[in-house]
Order: sequence, then structure tokens, then C-alpha cells
Amino acid sequence: MTIHAHAASGPKQSLKPFDYEPGPLKDDEVEVAVTHCGICHSDVSMIDNDFGMTTYPLVPGHEVVGTIAALGRGVKNLKQGQRVGVGWLCGTCGECEWCLRGKGHLCAQQQATIIAHHGGYADRVRSQARYAIPIPDGLSSAEAAPLMCAGSTVYSPIVHQGVRAGMKTAVIGIGGLGHLAIQYLAKFGCEVTAISGTTSKEAEARRLGATDFIATQTPDALKKAAMRFDFILDTVSGDVPWAALFDALRPEGKLVVAGVPASELKFGAFPLILFERSLVGGRLGSAEDTADMLAFTAAQKIKPMIETFPMKDLNKALDHVRSGKARYRAVLTA
Amino acid sequence: MTIHAHAASGPKQSLKPFDYEPGPLKDDEVEVAVTHCGICHSDVSMIDNDFGMTTYPLVPGHEVVGTIAALGRGVKNLKQGQRVGVGWLCGTCGECEWCLRGKGHLCAQQQATIIAHHGGYADRVRSQARYAIPIPDGLSSAEAAPLMCAGSTVYSPIVHQGVRAGMKTAVIGIGGLGHLAIQYLAKFGCEVTAISGTTSKEAEARRLGATDFIATQTPDALKKAAMRFDFILDTVSGDVPWAALFDALRPEGKLVVAGVPASELKFGAFPLILFERSLVGGRLGSAEDTADMLAFTAAQKIKPMIETFPMKDLNKALDHVRSGKARYRAVLTA
Repeated sequence: MTIHAHAASGPKQSLKPFDYEPGPLKDDEVEVAVTHCGICHSDVSMIDNDFGMTTYPLVPGHEVVGTIAALGRGVKNLKQGQRVGVGWLCGTCGECEWCLRGKGHLCAQQQATIIAHHGGYADRVRSQARYAIPIPDGLSSAEAAPLMCAGSTVYSPIVHQGVRAGMKTAVIGIGGLGHLAIQYLAKFGCEVTAISGTTSKEAEARRLGATDFIATQTPDALKKAAMRFDFILDTVSGDVPWAALFDALRPEGKLVVAGVPASELKFGAFPLILFERSLVGGRLGSAEDTADMLAFTAAQKIKPMIETFPMKDLNKALDHVRSGKARYRAVLTA
Repeated sequence: MTIHAHAASGPKQSLKPFDYEPGPLKDDEVEVAVTHCGICHSDVSMIDNDFGMTTYPLVPGHEVVGTIAALGRGVKNLKQGQRVGVGWLCGTCGECEWCLRGKGHLCAQQQATIIAHHGGYADRVRSQARYAIPIPDGLSSAEAAPLMCAGSTVYSPIVHQGVRAGMKTAVIGIGGLGHLAIQYLAKFGCEVTAISGTTSKEAEARRLGATDFIATQTPDALKKAAMRFDFILDTVSGDVPWAALFDALRPEGKLVVAGVPASELKFGAFPLILFERSLVGGRLGSAEDTADMLAFTAAQKIKPMIETFPMKDLNKALDHVRSGKARYRAVLTA
């Protein structure tokens, strides 16, 4: 059955209606009727081909929530009408060492939802059943949508990089990812400092659970934080002061890069060697991570801050995200 | 009692005889009669004040092996005449969170053996008892000496950064550190590739346990190793091709920097983010790590390759190390 989607035909282009025939549903797949879809910064990057891996027409959208509209013959653990979410990944090989270790996000055969595959700015989307994750009852669909990428991207490094209660942590950037990271770290029992360019988001950050705030534009503010943090999560799509951030880490401290820096990183290695500090590439999150994250979010009543737009106002919503005005995640509704 | 040592009075200076009075032995200290002392590249760096933290007169030497000549009143676990080794550290506070977690090498109050303290190019050296590590019977004193720093520096990241049997590993640099790292990784059951500038040390590397060899000066050699290693240990005191090395890591792969690079690191973050790769500062090794390493080295009959020089030929030995001719560790004998 024809899927009615919205596609970009080139960088910086407005999205236009785009219909496509998805072909027969595979045995291990499901088709999800989209009710909500978050707009992630990487949808914008993919529209603009910033990563050099876009194929056009591109149907963005990888923070999908909806209901199961059709099930492949081999799918046993989901049922018609069930509410599920689909994130960055919609398929993996299921057989490689990474898949077998519950780390499908590292599978070399992984299928991303919006790379050579049509995403969630549409009435329906296809996914392997394994990547259609049931949404716990405690979460509204609009709130669950941004969790599927933003939530998983900040939750996964926290749980897999040895963060413990009582640790001194910092989150760089208070946006779609950062406003969730602050909440997760606070609920895990960490001390959280929010780091932003200016003080404009300080009150909000404190409301979300931060107990301190550093504005990097304040002279020496970061310098004063030397040897302070066990874990820093960089959620900014852009450059940050690497050397000062390494100095801000305590012994064994980790700086996790979850946002994509604009330029090459440049720093001296001595501050890493002296204190066994690490720079770690962010973790997308496996299907299992995402399920854990949804359960934790529901249990702790963590709330993504969202602004909703009807799907017909998609281009307006994209402009809103492009201009950096989203507080903190735009979500499209069917 | 006067200690007869050899000291540098400025960068690039020859070492000259230097006597000093160590003062009363503290309750938690021991005095070690030096029988052997390895020459580490960082002794040379400290003589030249490359790290900007040298105080002159400098008595280098932090790969000491000898026998207990005197015990502080509070020392219970060592005895007169016992054979011990002293490495980079000779003291920590014993009370901070790092000391209490068995990670004294991260203690902020740590006393390095050759920073504002006189080292092992001498007839005797002082250390806290905790940092005078008993040498297992299976190791000769000459062989044990270079283990105290070089051995610990490569062994500690291997055991603390999640290296498992069967992993694909690489060692950059076949020198004092690298020739030991190859042996440890091979004995831990890893596949080991030695990486060097040219093929001149290939036969030696294979003899030590490497099953493959990459000469970085061979065009595209490193490029062909893309996505190949779980763990790369950089033991080179100098710059390495960072971007190509990150590309050579498999998912979750770690690049550990144990040597001190000459320049700032520069690379793009995307290869880290896509595959959850890490850059990790090398680990000096706690007293506990060093004891483990000595036991493993003895049990596995791992042999440091050394050249011995009588202490009176100290300056000749230093020149030998400076010129990069040591195969692979110079050791002074009393």
C-alpha cells in the first residue's frame, strides 16, 4: 500500500509530499502507522547532506512513535495496534558478534531509518520488529518520540561508561539532548553542572536538576572548574573548548562526544596521560538500551520538553529547529 | 648516612657525582640499597626538563631494584635485606579516595621518585614501604628493573581497559615499552600486530609474539588496517598518525596513549562517534598493578631485553638511550 511521506530532493530544500511503494513486508518486519515523529538535529544535517551520506529523495524522521499496522509472518513478540517507537536504527544483521552481544548499534550491516531507507515524516514507516520498541504506558506518545533518538543518545553513554551515583558530572549544551541528559544524571544520583555559552538557560537547567551552571563566555569560568568532573557529556553540534574540558576532568574522568563537532579536535595529550582521562565517542544505543531508557524515563517521570506541530506544518517546524528556537524538541503529530 | 648519587644540574648536562643527606627515615619509609636501575626515556626527558617540572640537582632513576637497607619504625610487611623494586611513584597520601580504591597513581599528593625527590642513580634511595614492591624469585634483578616503570606502564592499561583473550591488538613502537607490551598481549591470548616506522624490527617483533607487522612508512599500510583492532597501545614518545589509527580501530576500540606525543593531537571526531571508539590516557600503574605485573611476568617467563652498564658508565648509557640505540632497555648495575 502506498506510503504518503514528505521528502527533500536536495540540500536546504523544503520538504514536499512524496509517495512511495514500500514493496512486500519482509518476514521480520513491521509497518508502523506514524502518530508522532520528533525532529532531530541530524534530520536537518541529513537534509543538508552535512555527513555526505544522504541519498535523495530523503524522507527524514527517526524519532517515530505509532502503532503496529502490519506484521511480517515471522514476528511473534508484537501485535497489531501495539504502540511502538522506532529510532535511528531500523535493522541489523542479527548474526554478527555485535548483534549477538546486544550491541546492534555497532553492526556493520545496520540499516539506519533515514539512510537509503524512508523515515518517519510519513503516514507509515517500516522497521525490523526488533527495532520497533514497545512504549511503556506511563509515557505519552508525543513525549516518547524524542526519546527514541535524543533520549537513547544521552542515556546509553551514561549507563555504559561507568557513571555511578555521587559522581560529579557536567552536560554541555541545553537543547534536545542536553535537557534530557541533565534529568537522567540527576535521577541517577549524580551532581550535575550544566555548561552553556551564556547564562540564558540557567534557570531552566536548574529546574531540570542541575545544581550548578557554567557559562563558557564568562572569562575563566571553565578554568575555575579544573579537576572537577568525573564525566562530561558533550551534546553540542559544534566545537567546544577541548583542552579546557580535559583539564576540567578528574582522574579517570571521561569526556563523551555525543554531538558532532564542526571542526577537527585539537589538544595536547599530557592532561589525558597524567590522569588516565578518556575521550569517548558517543553511543547511539542498542535496541536494548532504548528499552531500558524508556522504562527508566517512565519510572522516574522524566519529561522531555516538547513543542508539537501538525505534520502539515513540517517545513515551519524544520525552520524552527534550524533557527535554534526549539525548546527543546519539536514533535510532528499526524 | 650520606647517599652517593649522580645528578644533572641543568638540561642536557652530563651527570656528576652528587652526595646528599637524606635526613631521618620516616616511620612509613624504607631505604633501598640500589643494585640495579633501568634508564627510562622519561629520565632523559626529566634531565632535559621537557615536562617543565624538573628541579635541579636532579637524581634520575625510577626503575630501581635493590635490597632493604633500613626500615622505618612502622613498616611491618618488609624485612631487612629483602629484594624490592621502586618505580615512578615512591609515595602517596594513603587516605584519599584514590588511595583507598587501590589507585594511588591518581593520588593528588603523590610523590614521584624523581620529582623533588632523589632517584635511583645512586647507592641508595628512599621510598614509602608501600611503593617498595617485593620482586618474585623467578625474576633476575637486572630484568626486574625495567619492569618497574616500562612493564607497569604497558601492563596496567592492558588489564584495566577491558582487553580480553582473542582480541585483535596492536602495539605502536618496538622499544623499551613496546617490546614488553607485545609479549604481555600475546601471553594474554590476543592477536598482536607490531606497528613501527620501518620493517627494521619486524623479525624481532615476531620473535616476541607479534603475528603481523605494519610499517607506517609503507604507503597505505595503515589504511589497509581499517576497522581491524580492538586495542592499540601507543608507546612512542613522538607523534603518530592519529586519524589513521582511529580508523584502524574496530567498534568499541580503544587507542591508549602511553608515550608522550611531541605535538598536539588533531583529528576529526566522527570516526569516534560512529563506532564508540575511545582515546585513553595511559596508566602509570598503582603499586597493586605493579605487583600483579611482576607476578605475571615471572609466571609467564616474559623476558625484558636489556643491556647492562656499570653505574660508573652512566653518562655513556644515557647517550646510548638518547641516540635510540638501546635494545631495548639499558640497566645500570651497582
